[in-house]
Amino acid sequence: MTTLLIAGGRVLRPDLTVERADVLVDREAGEILAVEPNLAADRDTEETLSAEGGLVVPGLVNAHGHGAMTLLRGYADDKPLDAWLQEDIWPVEGVLTPEDVRAGTDLALLELIRSGTTGFADMYFHVGEVAEAVDAAGLRGRLGHGVVTIGKDEEAAQADVDEGIEMAREYDETADGRVTTALMPHAPHTVGSEYLDQLATAADDLGVPIHFHLNETQEYVDAIDAETGQRPVDYADDHGLLREDTWVAHGVHLTAEEIGTLAETDTSVVHCPASNMKLASGMAPVQTLLDAGVGVGLGTDGAASNNDLDAFDEVRDAAMLGKLAADDAAAVPAEAVVEMATAGSADALGFDSGRIDVGANADLAVLDLDAAHLTPAHDLVSHLAYAVRGSDVRHTVCDGDVLMRDREVLTLDAEAVRRRAREAASAAVDRVE
Amino acid sequence: MTTLLIAGGRVLRPDLTVERADVLVDREAGEILAVEPNLAADRDTEETLSAEGGLVVPGLVNAHGHGAMTLLRGYADDKPLDAWLQEDIWPVEGVLTPEDVRAGTDLALLELIRSGTTGFADMYFHVGEVAEAVDAAGLRGRLGHGVVTIGKDEEAAQADVDEGIEMAREYDETADGRVTTALMPHAPHTVGSEYLDQLATAADDLGVPIHFHLNETQEYVDAIDAETGQRPVDYADDHGLLREDTWVAHGVHLTAEEIGTLAETDTSVVHCPASNMKLASGMAPVQTLLDAGVGVGLGTDGAASNNDLDAFDEVRDAAMLGKLAADDAAAVPAEAVVEMATAGSADALGFDSGRIDVGANADLAVLDLDAAHLTPAHDLVSHLAYAVRGSDVRHTVCDGDVLMRDREVLTLDAEAVRRRAREAASAAVDRVE
Ligand SMILES: [Zn+2]
Ligand SMILES: [Zn+2]
Repeated sequence: MTTLLIAGGRVLRPDLTVERADVLVDREAGEILAVEPNLAADRDTEETLSAEGGLVVPGLVNAHGHGAMTLLRGYADDKPLDAWLQEDIWPVEGVLTPEDVRAGTDLALLELIRSGTTGFADMYFHVGEVAEAVDAAGLRGRLGHGVVTIGKDEEAAQADVDEGIEMAREYDETADGRVTTALMPHAPHTVGSEYLDQLATAADDLGVPIHFHLNETQEYVDAIDAETGQRPVDYADDHGLLREDTWVAHGVHLTAEEIGTLAETDTSVVHCPASNMKLASGMAPVQTLLDAGVGVGLGTDGAASNNDLDAFDEVRDAAMLGKLAADDAAAVPAEAVVEMATAGSADALGFDSGRIDVGANADLAVLDLDAAHLTPAHDLVSHLAYAVRGSDVRHTVCDGDVLMRDREVLTLDAEAVRRRAREAASAAVDRVE
Repeated sequence: MTTLLIAGGRVLRPDLTVERADVLVDREAGEILAVEPNLAADRDTEETLSAEGGLVVPGLVNAHGHGAMTLLRGYADDKPLDAWLQEDIWPVEGVLTPEDVRAGTDLALLELIRSGTTGFADMYFHVGEVAEAVDAAGLRGRLGHGVVTIGKDEEAAQADVDEGIEMAREYDETADGRVTTALMPHAPHTVGSEYLDQLATAADDLGVPIHFHLNETQEYVDAIDAETGQRPVDYADDHGLLREDTWVAHGVHLTAEEIGTLAETDTSVVHCPASNMKLASGMAPVQTLLDAGVGVGLGTDGAASNNDLDAFDEVRDAAMLGKLAADDAAAVPAEAVVEMATAGSADALGFDSGRIDVGANADLAVLDLDAAHLTPAHDLVSHLAYAVRGSDVRHTVCDGDVLMRDREVLTLDAEAVRRRAREAASAAVDRVE
């Protein structure tokens, strides 16, 4: 066995207390072996990372996004969701090649590593490229092909469903287990009901979870209601989509009954506060979801509606927006949002990470606390919620491997990734304009 | 004449276009001499700052805050405004010494410089300490003593008003003109009407502007209504507080009539989105204010309700929250928030800054664009609104002097400032607990 030692700092424990401790990691198993003060390096220790003056936290988990949309960061802002998708985003996405998706995903992964995110969910297309990128960059990803059938003839629709199933089969449990998959119908209003049924059955066959957008805008809720006479949560439930391992994105416009159904079915909700604000979708009832016992994680959504993938922004946004939504400054406190971005998101994705504890995946980040904006330090959980940002991350570790050391990303050539992304983005935009 | 040359980058111009240009600064006058491509250093050029791969922007202006509240960053979170002030903030503020205020202000100034803010407004007490700190650190500040008379006997109330007037007289146009002052009644509901009248008269005598909190929460609006039967804007107007050079903080709960009065009186509103979210105060109608022709700036408010002083957060928050408030994703677009944080705030404070143009104050920041989260670069104004953060600032210049070069702050000893702030904060908290 070889080990990695993270020494000299403080550690955020699963109960959100902070203690002085070192963290010893089994590199082969990718697991945390010990969390104790004064652990010494021994002959098994291949590498020691300094956490002096820092805080070891679980790597953040970004539980909803579309990685390659980094190519469209800032391409079209300040428009409502539906017009933005139809007029700006989908036309460019329609011309993206597999190489473009690889370039955009690599850029996303670079940004995630630099801001201390070690695990994420990705709904996109050309999933083979995404899986290869994740394998190479060293993160943990739950990946899927975003299935859309509306506006397609039967053959094309079925082909998209088949691609979703095939990708989920092919890439699950690859990259030493760091890559897992899910079936990802885009949303109830963009996938025909017969195809939802097929995907639910395929999830049983393959033993993979289901992920989709749900109740993001009032318009999308109304669309399901007009088509089926049902609320979207009931409709999704009737088609077998709500399960213990399902996680849905957004959940902005929910009735009390729908929240009850999400709780009963153990469906997790991934809150995407920045995207919901930027697209004026509304305010998710996060405190109400927490009170109802619904598992809540956090996601950035795609970079085009955010416009970055720094999950620390989402932590702050979630605390801020949750208070407005509840009309209560005590709602969605610091502890809740830190939990959501770590264990909450990890649980939603079925990752054994999101906590610094013996036996958990060695997915973690070391934050630098020696900064004006983190001084004084009355309460480090408050700092995590309201003041830390991705640029405070010193080291990033996933599955026992060091992905960034002293802000140098080791698994990606940052210059080359940025150049390829720039080229892919401008070529794609040129093709549609 | 000696000059400073900022060379090799792109420049954000007052019309929000971006051009390749160098910026030449007259150091003594503290003014911009030229904005042109290929300016060469000559024998007058004392120093050249590289803007290679970067963007020169006006230094941000933080138009509402309480600098020394950095000492209380993270001290008490997740509580509503009134309970938070009365139970947590005011007790500690009550024991702060002049040295504590200096320590907290220095920490604030360090944070402002590091995040590219060159000008700010400060409402606090021990204003002499604040003025000395601003003089030494090199920023531009509009300072005032926050007058509060409720809960005080007549003598103490009059003494507080007198201190506000005396500080405004003593420190106006000091520090080579970088320090100016204002009369700052805390809010209509915390200062008696006779004292408001005194302060309005003193503003005329001294020729300084007026600044106060207005319509921050529904409770505060109701308090004025219960006491006077008037809306707070009418009440403030009747007491002579609304003028062309007045700027008010918050403006969250405003009627259409009040917005009309603010526009007619040329009163500027400083939007504080993070504080309004964190304290669940509500959503300011920013697009409506802009449509009505009201001048709008941005402020962080105190660090205890934010919890940092990075004005780039406010830029993003303002764009995000403005869309939710208007229920329109096209509202408060990128251009509007960039304008608010620069020229909008500068105009509110009466600063001749907030624009990179010949004759303007040489108050600027150079941003590093070589970053994953700023790639690709479809639209730099979008990046300024949604993706840039304070840690992207490479150099900060105020009044022609370099305050930070290559992220090293030159006018403050960062280590010593942070140590003194830590000590002052923990001693103050110990005194009340
Ligand atoms: Zn999405
Ligand atoms: Zn304030």
